[in-house]
Amino acid sequence: MHQTFDAALEINLLHANQDGADHNRAHFEEWGIVCVNLMSSPGAGKTQLLERTLQALNPECKMAVIEGDMTTELDAERLRQYGVPVIAINTGRACHLDSKMVAGGIHSLSHEHDPASLDLVWVENVGNLVCPAEFEVGEHAKVALLSVTEGEDKPLKYPIMFREADCLIITKTDLTPYLEIDLERIKANVRQVNPQVPIFAVSTKTLEGFEGWLQWVRQLIVQKGVCV
Amino acid sequence: MHQTFDAALEINLLHANQDGADHNRAHFEEWGIVCVNLMSSPGAGKTQLLERTLQALNPECKMAVIEGDMTTELDAERLRQYGVPVIAINTGRACHLDSKMVAGGIHSLSHEHDPASLDLVWVENVGNLVCPAEFEVGEHAKVALLSVTEGEDKPLKYPIMFREADCLIITKTDLTPYLEIDLERIKANVRQVNPQVPIFAVSTKTLEGFEGWLQWVRQLIVQKGVCV
Repeated sequence: MHQTFDAALEINLLHANQDGADHNRAHFEEWGIVCVNLMSSPGAGKTQLLERTLQALNPECKMAVIEGDMTTELDAERLRQYGVPVIAINTGRACHLDSKMVAGGIHSLSHEHDPASLDLVWVENVGNLVCPAEFEVGEHAKVALLSVTEGEDKPLKYPIMFREADCLIITKTDLTPYLEIDLERIKANVRQVNPQVPIFAVSTKTLEGFEGWLQWVRQLIVQKGVCV
Repeated sequence: MHQTFDAALEINLLHANQDGADHNRAHFEEWGIVCVNLMSSPGAGKTQLLERTLQALNPECKMAVIEGDMTTELDAERLRQYGVPVIAINTGRACHLDSKMVAGGIHSLSHEHDPASLDLVWVENVGNLVCPAEFEVGEHAKVALLSVTEGEDKPLKYPIMFREADCLIITKTDLTPYLEIDLERIKANVRQVNPQVPIFAVSTKTLEGFEGWLQWVRQLIVQKGVCV
């Protein structure tokens, strides 16, 4: 729950959130950790992408997950099967993770594990194509997912998320034959709001396009110089 | 944009919104109009359901649409093809329609058309499975849509929307054969948070299940005693 309200109050809240995000990022950098924030509509496939990615990168990189959901630990339980630390945050009525909630997650993580032994922390945000885009949590990169089933027009209708993204993944491409949809038109619409963003069209079922995404993650890690 | 903030402020905002919703509802009732608020994740098929429904009910019922989107008039333009008045509201950074925005829509509608000649006003909310659920806009019924592609667990993970719904439509059922999904499990999860809600499993492509939804709309109209 939230509301559009008084502009000065909005600016104060965003500033306070940004301060918290900078603080979280300083912790990550002190420990040599890269943090990636995954965002999308509900059901676009964030958890499944994460399952595949944990499986693929596990041997080469020490990872953990901060998992945001309004209620339940369903996704956290799915991810714990991959042998990585998973901190579940229930946001209650809140529609996105903010930097304070993620600070709580970092606190729990660093109590149970030596944070300096970690290379990469994934933040899986609440499923919402609007609100999470405006709240930094201390990440080094924002990754937005868009399922082919959501339609070609979404980048134009929800521009803030697509503008903020450092990487865009079009998911569930295995369903394309059953939809009246043109992948190239989705990409063109993304480019209208974010001309330079890397785009990967991926099926986590057939693994088509998945290697491109993994390469992007590896590059990010190398850029930040933590694990190789 | 919005934020979880101070509890007293939240309560005030929700009260102010509720007052506005009651005011809108009083207008609808004065004019003999039933108002239905359609809500779902982005891309679950609200606009397509509305297209089919306008086509099917057009001869028997005078309708209008208040169409909420962050930006663009893409959906409004799609719906105008069906010969009904469509008022587009761009919410900007806001993630849901509130009662004040809808009051603006009613104002525009009643300037251009005699509101007493209308029977049914559809409100299509911003695509968001979290935030619209808490902001009444003056509707007589809340209808939530959930696409089969979003996964079985969504009613448990986003319970507020499913608890608030007066009617639940499972959409895109024509895609079920290509997904690892059990329709009965989706229904059981909906029932966990809202035991009595009517559920319709619908494909707007094949029109399977569509007649059940139309009957629900017709019943709502008869209950409110406007058009028959």
